[in-house]
Amino acid sequence: MKTFRKELWFEIPSRRGFVNITGEVEACVRESAVREGLALVNAMHITASVFINDDEPGLHFDYERWLEELAPHEPTKHYHHNRTGEDNADAHLKRQVMGREVVVAITQGKLDFGPWEQIFYGEFDGKRRKRVLVKIIGE
Amino acid sequence: MKTFRKELWFEIPSRRGFVNITGEVEACVRESAVREGLALVNAMHITASVFINDDEPGLHFDYERWLEELAPHEPTKHYHHNRTGEDNADAHLKRQVMGREVVVAITQGKLDFGPWEQIFYGEFDGKRRKRVLVKIIGE
Amino acid sequence: MKTFRKELWFEIPSRRGFVNITGEVEACVRESAVREGLALVNAMHITASVFINDDEPGLHFDYERWLEELAPHEPTKHYHHNRTGEDNADAHLKRQVMGREVVVAITQGKLDFGPWEQIFYGEFDGKRRKRVLVKIIGE
Repeated sequence: MKTFRKELWFEIPSRRGFVNITGEVEACVRESAVREGLALVNAMHITASVFINDDEPGLHFDYERWLEELAPHEPTKHYHHNRTGEDNADAHLKRQVMGREVVVAITQGKLDFGPWEQIFYGEFDGKRRKRVLVKIIGE
Repeated sequence: MKTFRKELWFEIPSRRGFVNITGEVEACVRESAVREGLALVNAMHITASVFINDDEPGLHFDYERWLEELAPHEPTKHYHHNRTGEDNADAHLKRQVMGREVVVAITQGKLDFGPWEQIFYGEFDGKRRKRVLVKIIGE
Repeated sequence: MKTFRKELWFEIPSRRGFVNITGEVEACVRESAVREGLALVNAMHITASVFINDDEPGLHFDYERWLEELAPHEPTKHYHHNRTGEDNADAHLKRQVMGREVVVAITQGKLDFGPWEQIFYGEFDGKRRKRVLVKIIGE
């Protein structure tokens, strides 16, 4: 069994944003030399997500607006978590809707994807350096 | 290490619907001959889900109504994604709530499930042929 | 390839609650003797979750209140599922928001976590004995 590990680093300049990381994960798969296996891609921070959906700016606008409706950032005093001095309680909620991680099949040395699947880093409390973990196992 | 891959195809005649695919995934596990390992089951389309819950029609009614409340299909003009000519933005949102994939343990050649766990394909933009991927690794 | 399996049992005295199970999962990783691989941790019940987030009581209060807003327990008659004699339809919905499972990388014999990642059992229909499955594969 082969295993591979890499951290991808991000610093999103705004509070929230989506970044297509498919190419970076594909590079990990190539570097791992795994032909058949599984790739785990997860946010290492609890106010961020990794998810698979469409690379379409209108959809990202819709996600942003919808997540703000489901779990608004303000009023920050609404959240007990923010009594700790943080202002990011909403980010912990949004991340649960979008998910922490994806597991992707590797087949014949490639991410085994449907026609429109793309992997995104979803940031909900940005303006600082944060990480995604790629862990690959297989042979 | 053994690996196994199969695509399951669906064509749901309505826009939305839930299909119990547990039997088809169990057949994959048998065919794989894996006794100990992991099975990844994921939608290959970004307006569909694979999730684990109860095979109870009342609950499926509740999911349908609840998802429509959280992310209504109409008015379709509400969503920027639909300016691309699509009318399925809501389906991309519903899929995030229900999830893309499940990972299930395989123990002694069987899906290692609690008493009520069943695997479903959740369709949110149907009336066309779409796929689920089953990837199994183990030995 | 090594594999390891263990069930963790819980009986939450109230309807809903969150329990930090990171230490128990770490003990499984040690017992498995897997140095490089993947750990699947999933609820075996469909009204409970396993998720990764912060061990901060204010945040757990926020999750509790938010999930009740998204999928209220009452009026129980609102849900078709409850016509079966159950009163836990809301728990099946809450569990979809929080998720069934997490997959965690194992690197050098340890859970490969960011600084604040902790694993929780989320109970949404408690007052009875329920289980979490830990399945580890690797070498």
